[in-house]
Amino acid sequence: MSTAILPSATTTTSPFGSASHLQCRECGARYSLGAEYACIECFGPLEVGYEFGTVTREQIESGPLSIWRYSALLPVSATAALEPNLAPGFTKLVRADNLARALGMTGVLWVKDDSGNPTHSFKDRVVAVAQSAARRLGLSTLSCASTGNLANAVAAAAARGAQPSVVLIPSDLEPGKVVTTAAYGTTLIAVEGNYDDVNRLCSELIGDPVTDDWGFVNVNLRPYYAEGSKTLGYEIAEQLGWRLPQQVVIPIASGALLTKVDKGFREFIDLGLVEETPYRIFGAQAVGCSPVEQAFRAGHDVVRPVRPDTIAKSLAIGNPADGPYALDVVRRTGGSIGAVTDEEIVEGIRLLAETEGIFAETAGGVTVATLRALLRSGELDPTAETVLLNTGDGLKTLDAVSPHVGPAGTIAPSVSAVVDLLGGAA
Amino acid sequence: MSTAILPSATTTTSPFGSASHLQCRECGARYSLGAEYACIECFGPLEVGYEFGTVTREQIESGPLSIWRYSALLPVSATAALEPNLAPGFTKLVRADNLARALGMTGVLWVKDDSGNPTHSFKDRVVAVAQSAARRLGLSTLSCASTGNLANAVAAAAARGAQPSVVLIPSDLEPGKVVTTAAYGTTLIAVEGNYDDVNRLCSELIGDPVTDDWGFVNVNLRPYYAEGSKTLGYEIAEQLGWRLPQQVVIPIASGALLTKVDKGFREFIDLGLVEETPYRIFGAQAVGCSPVEQAFRAGHDVVRPVRPDTIAKSLAIGNPADGPYALDVVRRTGGSIGAVTDEEIVEGIRLLAETEGIFAETAGGVTVATLRALLRSGELDPTAETVLLNTGDGLKTLDAVSPHVGPAGTIAPSVSAVVDLLGGAA
Repeated sequence: MSTAILPSATTTTSPFGSASHLQCRECGARYSLGAEYACIECFGPLEVGYEFGTVTREQIESGPLSIWRYSALLPVSATAALEPNLAPGFTKLVRADNLARALGMTGVLWVKDDSGNPTHSFKDRVVAVAQSAARRLGLSTLSCASTGNLANAVAAAAARGAQPSVVLIPSDLEPGKVVTTAAYGTTLIAVEGNYDDVNRLCSELIGDPVTDDWGFVNVNLRPYYAEGSKTLGYEIAEQLGWRLPQQVVIPIASGALLTKVDKGFREFIDLGLVEETPYRIFGAQAVGCSPVEQAFRAGHDVVRPVRPDTIAKSLAIGNPADGPYALDVVRRTGGSIGAVTDEEIVEGIRLLAETEGIFAETAGGVTVATLRALLRSGELDPTAETVLLNTGDGLKTLDAVSPHVGPAGTIAPSVSAVVDLLGGAA
Repeated sequence: MSTAILPSATTTTSPFGSASHLQCRECGARYSLGAEYACIECFGPLEVGYEFGTVTREQIESGPLSIWRYSALLPVSATAALEPNLAPGFTKLVRADNLARALGMTGVLWVKDDSGNPTHSFKDRVVAVAQSAARRLGLSTLSCASTGNLANAVAAAAARGAQPSVVLIPSDLEPGKVVTTAAYGTTLIAVEGNYDDVNRLCSELIGDPVTDDWGFVNVNLRPYYAEGSKTLGYEIAEQLGWRLPQQVVIPIASGALLTKVDKGFREFIDLGLVEETPYRIFGAQAVGCSPVEQAFRAGHDVVRPVRPDTIAKSLAIGNPADGPYALDVVRRTGGSIGAVTDEEIVEGIRLLAETEGIFAETAGGVTVATLRALLRSGELDPTAETVLLNTGDGLKTLDAVSPHVGPAGTIAPSVSAVVDLLGGAA
């Protein structure tokens, strides 16, 4: 299971595997592989381009039980799995018959449960690819701006890599998220301001000598980082037995995850790893931060920024960088985008926990509630095979649920008190 | 990967697989397989007995990526993997070179990281086996007394199984643990009193008509439940490449986990799945609840109960049922038992997080700190291959760490403020 995947003889010694260049998603300008993220010509975002060799199902199946089974399709060296990292991925694809029944679906429903990752969110995937790229580019300090999941993932990955890390957070972050991140021994910097202020500060820090050896995973390493999300698409297809589902419901924050799952599906089709069957991709947002949903409903190509106000803080990006690309994917595949209220988010969390024993963070609640809303509106087909992405863990967002659940009662330690309570409840 | 494991033709139709009887660990009296847990003759605890067929490495390796790959060695039907359950197990065995270096070890050190289970503790393993037994025994409601991890595991497993559940907790439990359990939709009962009161109440409830169809996973289903912990031993051996480590460090609460890891090793030896090589088993307790460690140091066979007072609440069992058996295992294998202070527990959590990116709950901190203490005392061999068990997740015990970690500083959102802070820190 630990066999390294070597796509072809020529790429075994390549620092970035079969990745060959960076390319502007707007104007197509090409750049060599480096710590660049924006096009000099048009300021468009850069994406990794590849020259894939032959990749077979057997090669992948003989790989590690992590994202590294897909090393040949990522911008990493063939030895990435052997370098210190958290080995995320290959999380469970759970058949969710109880949830399907509760939602009135007759098609098979699956939950791709990324709370099983090392720090319990899908961010471990993207950070692992960024960490590998940082090594190749000589960036020894991992860094990011984050309000939670990414902070955990970066601090933990850097600890495992015996690397320094610097994580910047808004100073008003919940103490729980501060503790979790700080426990990994990162240099944690609280910044007076909101997440947008912290994010802007990170961009300004690039170029300052103090950050010469810093890799900001979601800024100057973003092209590599984002490729990590493709592995969610790969795993869904492989775990379904090398085929594509008919419908996928994906939360939208920056929009990168949704676009990369689609990219993963298309690459598997192009490489002949799965048959080309129709699939529709659906996006999920919170009403309190739904710029992409609003653009979708209005028929716009441009996403107008909003000021977030939702309990789904991990999705609270008011100006989503990949919003237009997410719109493209949803429209091209015949999907749609829904938005749900904070109340529906909590209902979504509880519904998933009560039916399948999976306790999701608020982003998971958004996705479940959006699935329900799109079934009710008729946009989602209840008879089609559907995959729902749960990207994080309820233990990190207890405050969202705590006002709504609790004991059936408090009783004296006696048998009769139990009998009375249960009789009264019946 | 989903092939059912059929140990032999005769057991395919057996409700409990190759398990053949219950047997008293004290007097050896035999009972048929049922919802019994104490010997009528001598009140000794009952344990599952087996008549194993042939089991090969290939059979196991072709099984699911969960404890069900070992179905042929558990008291479950061959179809257990196909019934609704959380599919726990086959968690990562992480090579911990950074931690080894920090501890001055030259032998290879591994962390068996059970925080990767569905509800993030090893309790998912034992509950899954108990849930299967409950189905065979017609007990449709899952129940337990618990202060945390077990409550989560029972409530989640019952949700996935579309079964009712009743979880009893002390009324003064931390709100965070109440929320996590209640989110799964269990009937949660807060009992005025401490954990011992709740536990005694559960025993009293057995026999009352209201609990006719209740399976208390750690009381009347305990013989089955406890067998789930063997899978930790199996996985360690399989993941090492079908061989045993030289040393294993295991936290002690009731003592069942430690004795079952040993049982798993011995069964693998008896079945010819691994070579019989010497191994030593070490126990880890908190000074604030160290009855087994005290008995070990004093050379006693009997464990004298204590009143727990430690931050490691998941290990705070003052009167451990399997304490004497844990002593037997430690003495038979030439190991020892250490105990560490609350301060050392926090240091242990931080050391594991900072070196390997694994954020453990307090029980994990106990185990890391005990490893360090036993290396210092010379009882543990720093040159021998060693496996450390992390049984739970730091997200559930944030309060233990929160007073000790935090930001390096709070600054204005400017590049110069970052430079000043880092310059000052350097």
